Amino acid sequence: MTRIDHPEPLKRLAVQLRRLPGIGPRGAERIALWLLGGKDRTRPGDLAAAVKEAADSVHSCVQCGFLTDTPMCAICADESRAAGPLCVVEQATDILPLERTGVFRGRYHALGGRLSPLDHVGPDDLRIPALLVRCRSTPAPSEIILALGADVEGEATARYLAEILHGEFPPLPITRIAQGLPAGGGLESADELTLARALSGRVVIG
Amino acid sequence: MTRIDHPEPLKRLAVQLRRLPGIGPRGAERIALWLLGGKDRTRPGDLAAAVKEAADSVHSCVQCGFLTDTPMCAICADESRAAGPLCVVEQATDILPLERTGVFRGRYHALGGRLSPLDHVGPDDLRIPALLVRCRSTPAPSEIILALGADVEGEATARYLAEILHGEFPPLPITRIAQGLPAGGGLESADELTLARALSGRVVIG
Repeated sequence: MTRIDHPEPLKRLAVQLRRLPGIGPRGAERIALWLLGGKDRTRPGDLAAAVKEAADSVHSCVQCGFLTDTPMCAICADESRAAGPLCVVEQATDILPLERTGVFRGRYHALGGRLSPLDHVGPDDLRIPALLVRCRSTPAPSEIILALGADVEGEATARYLAEILHGEFPPLPITRIAQGLPAGGGLESADELTLARALSGRVVIG
Repeated sequence: MTRIDHPEPLKRLAVQLRRLPGIGPRGAERIALWLLGGKDRTRPGDLAAAVKEAADSVHSCVQCGFLTDTPMCAICADESRAAGPLCVVEQATDILPLERTGVFRGRYHALGGRLSPLDHVGPDDLRIPALLVRCRSTPAPSEIILALGADVEGEATARYLAEILHGEFPPLPITRIAQGLPAGGGLESADELTLARALSGRVVIG
């Protein structure tokens, strides 16, 4: 007596779908069945074509690492941003959230990760040489803003970058984005470390 | 000043991903970025290949409508199930959940939908002629079990099928799966209609 199950190609599709972030085993099965359903059977082709088109045409900006389908991204191509501050982020996907805040009008530099000895990620694995080249170029950035994560690896990466940047470009201001209470968060929902950093980072308002 | 956003092919991929069941706008963006990330860039190809393979090889069983990658599905190909009861379901995707209960050892027949005048789905849009052919064949099914939804359309479809089946095959038993309290559900969480059906469907136990 054979155990009845989905056909193997459907199960292989569900395995691939389970790799996607936020998709569990039931969600993957549901999506696989949805893809193979529909009267006109256009769903699999539509999805596969969109995946292929994006994979073929989207790549990293040669200068900053942001995702683009042109040789240089729209931010790096915008000459009005040339001489402003340079914002260093860990991942290319960190750029759009910062850009959407609307408060920053400079350029970005994605490192492609952060220092993490436990994961065997050292300075040579990040786009740090390219960052130094940009700091040496003309017009030079007016400031280096380190917009890295507020965790141990983010801290270590920020300290490392501050040290080598200050060594080569002593007059260049190097800043780090603030840590403190998240917007809308009360003190009762903040952990001790967040409160400690909010306290030590306090600003004069009157 | 141009508004910076993801490249168009990435946005088109996110639009396709949003069509998948259970994926919202943020999930679609996250999946699209994940697909285009990864050191070796194999993720888009792996997914597109699995989608294409499933779409090319998975189809409906010619007899019962279950999803299969062989001409006839494993259930219809199993001769030991030939003369047993025939379980009628709305969708091919209803078959596996029933099969996984382990209490049914007959064959299935997926209608491909249910009667729904508001959606312009009439008897001619469902696989009802194929059901009648199977009832006329040898060996004939021993019983027709209607495993349709407990909603208005499911009820209407069950009544319609019971009428035409009883008209052509008067001795053939036609049953319907029970309605009542779901397993683990207390009376306080059941709605009135469920309770009314549970009451009228009560069974003698002593």
